[in-house]
Amino acid sequence: MKTINIAILGCGTVGGGVAKILTEQQSLLSKRAGVNINLKTIAELNPEAAIKRFGIDKKYFATASPSENIKNILEANDIDIVVETMGGKSDFVHDTCLNVLKNNKHLVTANKALLAERGQDIFEQAIKSNLQIGYEAAVCGAIPIIKGIKECFTGDIIQSVCGIMNGTSNYILSQMTSQGLDFDQALKLAQQNGYAEADPSLDINGGDASHKLILLIKLAYGLKVNMEQLPITGIAQITKNDMEFAREINAKLKLICFAKREGNQVYATVRPMAVKNTNTLSFVDDAVNAVRLDNKYSGTHFLIGKGAGSSETAMSIVSDIVFIAKHQNVITEEENHNLTLGDCSKIAFPYLVSFKTKNLPGTTGLITTAIGNQGINIETVGHNRFSGETADFSIETESCELSKIEAAIAEIKSAKDGLLLESPKIIPILY
Amino acid sequence: MKTINIAILGCGTVGGGVAKILTEQQSLLSKRAGVNINLKTIAELNPEAAIKRFGIDKKYFATASPSENIKNILEANDIDIVVETMGGKSDFVHDTCLNVLKNNKHLVTANKALLAERGQDIFEQAIKSNLQIGYEAAVCGAIPIIKGIKECFTGDIIQSVCGIMNGTSNYILSQMTSQGLDFDQALKLAQQNGYAEADPSLDINGGDASHKLILLIKLAYGLKVNMEQLPITGIAQITKNDMEFAREINAKLKLICFAKREGNQVYATVRPMAVKNTNTLSFVDDAVNAVRLDNKYSGTHFLIGKGAGSSETAMSIVSDIVFIAKHQNVITEEENHNLTLGDCSKIAFPYLVSFKTKNLPGTTGLITTAIGNQGINIETVGHNRFSGETADFSIETESCELSKIEAAIAEIKSAKDGLLLESPKIIPILY
Repeated sequence: MKTINIAILGCGTVGGGVAKILTEQQSLLSKRAGVNINLKTIAELNPEAAIKRFGIDKKYFATASPSENIKNILEANDIDIVVETMGGKSDFVHDTCLNVLKNNKHLVTANKALLAERGQDIFEQAIKSNLQIGYEAAVCGAIPIIKGIKECFTGDIIQSVCGIMNGTSNYILSQMTSQGLDFDQALKLAQQNGYAEADPSLDINGGDASHKLILLIKLAYGLKVNMEQLPITGIAQITKNDMEFAREINAKLKLICFAKREGNQVYATVRPMAVKNTNTLSFVDDAVNAVRLDNKYSGTHFLIGKGAGSSETAMSIVSDIVFIAKHQNVITEEENHNLTLGDCSKIAFPYLVSFKTKNLPGTTGLITTAIGNQGINIETVGHNRFSGETADFSIETESCELSKIEAAIAEIKSAKDGLLLESPKIIPILY
Repeated sequence: MKTINIAILGCGTVGGGVAKILTEQQSLLSKRAGVNINLKTIAELNPEAAIKRFGIDKKYFATASPSENIKNILEANDIDIVVETMGGKSDFVHDTCLNVLKNNKHLVTANKALLAERGQDIFEQAIKSNLQIGYEAAVCGAIPIIKGIKECFTGDIIQSVCGIMNGTSNYILSQMTSQGLDFDQALKLAQQNGYAEADPSLDINGGDASHKLILLIKLAYGLKVNMEQLPITGIAQITKNDMEFAREINAKLKLICFAKREGNQVYATVRPMAVKNTNTLSFVDDAVNAVRLDNKYSGTHFLIGKGAGSSETAMSIVSDIVFIAKHQNVITEEENHNLTLGDCSKIAFPYLVSFKTKNLPGTTGLITTAIGNQGINIETVGHNRFSGETADFSIETESCELSKIEAAIAEIKSAKDGLLLESPKIIPILY
């Protein structure tokens, strides 16, 4: 039986999990791949810690200096697949990944930031070198959405891909919904329970979710989008009241990655949406991830699973290793449908618009009239949560362009100066 | 570019859908496969009807007699993949599939009855001939569960596979739940709306779902189970009251395919279960299918999608064609974990037990005492729906072996002869 040798760069949470599965299940994995899958070497700054944490035999750890170890792996003739689990998008990590491919080795990585923000030349190098990049673990952890698109739904055309792709923010929003917490309380709880890092910025501001959506848009549509082009709104502005307004219309607020093809354009955004309880995404709570595909021939699909975690992410990396070992030298060009990125404010959504106003009679009439003047039908006017001087309430509209909602708000502002105490929050509703 | 030629046997609902996608998307599919995917010929009893129904060019239809057409396809040197969409498990269809492989062609089929009941020699022939069988469409239509297990979760070990694998029965149960219909009314509605055939037996008695579970057990565990070995209970005995009892414990009744590995045994059954609303399967309504995997490393996954339909099933077949064209000559042995089929009554479940009794004081005490005498904890005693002489109520137990429930029922019967007006219904609860 032919042997495929694996090297792992970085033996932390994810890399250690990979080493553990590769050694625990070596014979099973080899049978599945039809070749002998062999963990050859691990380059790690702190081998002692990794040995202790994951119970990996020290024989796997290269013993030269860290940079020497990586250099040796890149230059080795008997390494077939390199797993990059160092993380980050530094020049060093970027150049190492590029050099893996230039040195004729397949690359497997969970590094979404690197691939989404600085991955273009890495992907191009793989095609040039006739090598594979396994990045299943980079998008929604254990959910097989990359192979789903590349290998499973190949008889179809993806019209829309959206989902819940960040576990931390979903955990926070779920706690706000189920426990009635404020954002700050829920964030603290997430940190206490290990669902959020000390610096949770990338999870909360939509950055991490955007990395995943950028990779899916590239895969499904062959469209290269960068972070600056993608409209991104995080969850830090969401209040307990917003949660209540959503509940009133049988919806839950979720941080949604959204991409939809219409004609020759792809409309994409990452932002909180009010997901109706007719949509399975509304039942995906806590740190779970989910992807929804709407396909031309086979309709709607949901893939739901763990989006993070050591063994979950490691499992996806090991699956990539098995796939590459089993299906070597299978390279096809990227999808290219000649699509461009559309302006997301131009596609119609129903909206949940929440208002904080002075508590004055006539306010509902004024606001609903202004909305009606824009030709927007109103579905529901929510309960007014007035408290003394101020009133909080929401309006659910039927489908319309964002610009119409904005025009209605402008009309309200000019009709009665000072009535609106805050800019209304405009949240798309997802059915 | 190399060309892969396709022949389709049978151009009905599914075969016609396949021909349509292959011709509509020929260039896209070829790009994805890296080879030219070419529909070469279709053998069909009634070409005129198929041409009219699917708008397929008549040039694709072979013009000799039906049996001659199939013989020609089997013997042709330039056919690479044969799509069998005739259906049924007759000797003719069985032998044709076997001969496809013996004649050195890959086989793609949606024929779950054939593969589950008479597929063993067909699968063995594929290994012998170093050819692939694509049967994604045979299990849950458009849901990519076959490639999910074979290609995506290869870094993992499946501990349990279960799900809702028959759309017709799920539609019927969903209508009973949401509209408060009796079984007969819901079945009629399903027939009126095209969700059930004139003869719905195989959908209602669990046979169709069992075919799919048998194929998944073979794939995930390498264990060959036949219909006689698998405990199967259909949905025809489920009443409106049962639905209500389930609702009372925050559950819905669903026809569940269940397989779970424990030690060296696989416990499997197809039967109605009360699925708690903490389990995403409980939200899968109408004709939708869903598969739940519980994996050693990556935890719980759900794959949800359309389980039937012309273009949905056709999409899965076309995806198999692309996969085979792209990854030719990739054969690995079947999984073999040396497992045996366990006795499903030996694994513990919580149960929902419903009673129809004489409406007499002391009944609840007698019944709950008998259950307690078996060491079974009671979770809930449901509302009593008494009507004159009879009382209908249910008991939710904590996890226990089926034999304990049966012993409790025997005790009740012997304590008060004639108290139970029917054999109590014992429904496992799925969290």
